[in-house]
Amino acid sequence: MTSQDRFSGVLAPVVTPFGQDLAPDAARLAAHCKWLVSHGVRLAVFGTNSEANSMSVGEKQDLLDRLAGSGVEPADMMPGTGACALSDAVALTAHAVRLGCGGVLMLPPFYYKGVPEDGLYRYYAEVIGRVGADGLRIYLYHIPHLTGVPITLGLIERLVRDFPGTVVGIKDSSGDWANTQAMLDRQWDDFAVFVGSEDFLLQGMRNGAVGCISATANVNPQAIARLAAHWRDADADAAQADLSAVRKIFQQRPMIPAMKYAIAHYGSDPGWTQVRPPLVPLGKADGEGLIADLDTAGFGALAGVTA
Amino acid sequence: MTSQDRFSGVLAPVVTPFGQDLAPDAARLAAHCKWLVSHGVRLAVFGTNSEANSMSVGEKQDLLDRLAGSGVEPADMMPGTGACALSDAVALTAHAVRLGCGGVLMLPPFYYKGVPEDGLYRYYAEVIGRVGADGLRIYLYHIPHLTGVPITLGLIERLVRDFPGTVVGIKDSSGDWANTQAMLDRQWDDFAVFVGSEDFLLQGMRNGAVGCISATANVNPQAIARLAAHWRDADADAAQADLSAVRKIFQQRPMIPAMKYAIAHYGSDPGWTQVRPPLVPLGKADGEGLIADLDTAGFGALAGVTA
Repeated sequence: MTSQDRFSGVLAPVVTPFGQDLAPDAARLAAHCKWLVSHGVRLAVFGTNSEANSMSVGEKQDLLDRLAGSGVEPADMMPGTGACALSDAVALTAHAVRLGCGGVLMLPPFYYKGVPEDGLYRYYAEVIGRVGADGLRIYLYHIPHLTGVPITLGLIERLVRDFPGTVVGIKDSSGDWANTQAMLDRQWDDFAVFVGSEDFLLQGMRNGAVGCISATANVNPQAIARLAAHWRDADADAAQADLSAVRKIFQQRPMIPAMKYAIAHYGSDPGWTQVRPPLVPLGKADGEGLIADLDTAGFGALAGVTA
Repeated sequence: MTSQDRFSGVLAPVVTPFGQDLAPDAARLAAHCKWLVSHGVRLAVFGTNSEANSMSVGEKQDLLDRLAGSGVEPADMMPGTGACALSDAVALTAHAVRLGCGGVLMLPPFYYKGVPEDGLYRYYAEVIGRVGADGLRIYLYHIPHLTGVPITLGLIERLVRDFPGTVVGIKDSSGDWANTQAMLDRQWDDFAVFVGSEDFLLQGMRNGAVGCISATANVNPQAIARLAAHWRDADADAAQADLSAVRKIFQQRPMIPAMKYAIAHYGSDPGWTQVRPPLVPLGKADGEGLIADLDTAGFGALAGVTA
């Protein structure tokens, strides 16, 4: 298998719609996935912004099946499959591989803090050994402000060395450019570094990153995908500034509820605002402020959203 | 239902034995549970020290069934059932109630940080509503250094007010006596405060706590239970000092692997040392140091352990 099978460019941690009963809504999710793909973005379903950890493994397996059944291409999907429980991570990863997903994005187990690097290594090694599939492609997921469990350079080094062709990349959501740069400097063979926000997209592409996996790709996919593809163009810095301006508007509110509010608003589908506890939906005043800010910024990315 | 049905005294977050294949070992666990109960301690199975979050909901449901089938009294069990995923928490809590467990110990959802109090309230309210059982008794679990999600006084106040007889207590593992004191000062009706370590046992009992739920109750049950029952005795301060001296020996090592090492050693059952990743077993030198320290301290609590 060559690096042509690998992900690059832009992926969205796809927001998950829930019904009034808080059950995941596969039909709305499939529609949003297709809209994203049609706008140049691939699908990191079950990421942080997907409220993935607020769903059970069974719910996620069922959603994957329904997405594939609805015509969402498994090769376009990089589902999040990392979990606190080794058994959960194995079950969901195996399911994703069986379905033909292009890769998986794996959090470390995140309940215990201060665990030894050996323990984290053993966790990933056990998942790889138990899933036991040639088609497994793991992208590590470094997001220390939520996990409290960093994926260190030393850990990556060991995994890349011992599982070449299987541990093939990372999403760096540390928000710490020095950390991203340090990963890029290592130049591990065929190892793909994704920045965790389009704020770092241009800087990333100029320094060897392959793209970004970013929340706001849910709501601004086309412009982000365009910069990822055309980062060598003369207007790249201006395009980067535009992306960051839009992101900032979302970031001033709780991100997940704000994105769902925007999808509901521009798609005329109020049901999209639902979130699972412990999150709460954006309030009316906050939501109206969000839309006003987006309108003022001339934001039209979601005009064609069909949900 | 009266407060006579409630837990008090000492509970152990029962360590979970795993086989060489890392599968939970129900027979060893049942034996350890019975040994603990015979030494005056009840069973907070699936706590932090049980590696509960390293197991799937299905594995925990199966273990509960097997424990009950092995003659461990459900009324003696307070399984941990809180989870990041609402659906997981509902499934495991409902299972525990159906089995007749005396209560459940509930972590907040711990992946997202900085979530609003309203979202945490809604999480617990949804679990209560969905489980929908009169027999449900929830003990909240405050352990902010691992969850990053504190259970604030304001949240407890709302839950106790809206769900009297259901939200009936808390385990405070903050290690912050001022926080424990603040909970005790509120004097909520029939609300049981457990300190999270026997280091605070005597101070807790003198100020209105009902007992402790402590890791080291796995290995030093009888002495801890004795102080909880006889805290008004003249020698209570000396007994407290003895408990803390033993705890300190374990605390100088990674707690869970150290307790398992001691159980394996005193029970002549090497299989007990296994842990699930991301934890790692205690190394040989560390383990021998632990036993030497315990022997020096004249520690005999585990002499009769049958595993």
